[in-house]
Amino acid sequence: MEIMRVVDELVCTRRVPGLQAASLRILASQQGVLSVATDPVGVPPGKWVYTTSGSAARLAMKDARITTDLTICGIIDNWDE
Amino acid sequence: MEIMRVVDELVCTRRVPGLQAASLRILASQQGVLSVATDPVGVPPGKWVYTTSGSAARLAMKDARITTDLTICGIIDNWDE
Amino acid sequence: MEIMRVVDELVCTRRVPGLQAASLRILASQQGVLSVATDPVGVPPGKWVYTTSGSAARLAMKDARITTDLTICGIIDNWDE
Amino acid sequence: MEIMRVVDELVCTRRVPGLQAASLRILASQQGVLSVATDPVGVPPGKWVYTTSGSAARLAMKDARITTDLTICGIIDNWDE
Amino acid sequence: MEIMRVVDELVCTRRVPGLQAASLRILASQQGVLSVATDPVGVPPGKWVYTTSGSAARLAMKDARITTDLTICGIIDNWDE
Repeated sequence: MEIMRVVDELVCTRRVPGLQAASLRILASQQGVLSVATDPVGVPPGKWVYTTSGSAARLAMKDARITTDLTICGIIDNWDE
Repeated sequence: MEIMRVVDELVCTRRVPGLQAASLRILASQQGVLSVATDPVGVPPGKWVYTTSGSAARLAMKDARITTDLTICGIIDNWDE
Repeated sequence: MEIMRVVDELVCTRRVPGLQAASLRILASQQGVLSVATDPVGVPPGKWVYTTSGSAARLAMKDARITTDLTICGIIDNWDE
Repeated sequence: MEIMRVVDELVCTRRVPGLQAASLRILASQQGVLSVATDPVGVPPGKWVYTTSGSAARLAMKDARITTDLTICGIIDNWDE
Repeated sequence: MEIMRVVDELVCTRRVPGLQAASLRILASQQGVLSVATDPVGVPPGKWVYTTSGSAARLAMKDARITTDLTICGIIDNWDE
């Protein structure tokens, strides 16, 4: 799992049906590269989280049919950048 | 999911049958590396999109048998590079 | 499999149910990038380990339903950095 | 899918049975890193191609049991480096 | 598949049961990063090999239940670094 920081919500008007109404977050990696993740936990911007990728990203969603390859798994307590 | 920009359509006369008639786009990553993605949304060049990779790329196609590992999932609104 | 060093335990109060009570460790890659892995072996900080990723990370857990994409597979003896 | 250039054929006398008699090509990425891919299309050295990786690489072969993680999917027309 | 060089055997006293008695090798990538691979071919140190990753790494083992994500597929003849 990767350690990333939540930067913002993602706003998009058009998307594929497989994502349903899943919440999407923009995350920054430790190197500052931005990605998009599904968020079943409900994490506010600024928090450090760890994420799972690949097929595990779908298993981490409450509904495993969500078409994602990156999902927030938990909030890390007391993380110093 | 990764954040990428649509650069162009991909023109290729010979390809494997598993791609069928799927639309292909050339995308640039935030670092400027070019990739090829299947596009079930219909995105014009210049737009920023987020993409899903791996087995999720096939699930994001309307026909999950399409042989792809990168699919455009949605257009990002109001993205500043 | 990747060669990584165990840096610390991961403390997180909120996480997805699929991780159950699996032990989580913070690992550093050879390039110093930090990741989070599930640990079925029980490795103290400071040890060098090798890890498996992707779907193999779930197979390496005693319970293959654990939602992980990185698992510690063994301790490397006598590793010089 | 990635954009790569065919550099050469791969000559190897010993290989695992799962590759059967599949044609192997040495490819260079846009950054110049070399990889090995299975080639169901039949591409001569010098051509630019796009490739699929992961489980999609097996689906792109005419025989999906071929043990590969990178397969040439098509030749790109008129590619300027 | 990636092109890598066999550096050494891996010695580890404790490992997960899923690896069984598979031979493990330390490999160096073209960039010099070290990884660990299962070796069904039997390759001595110094040889250049190509490897398969992900789920294909398990298919390349004689026993597909081996918990690996990187497997040596063959020895490359006459490789100049």
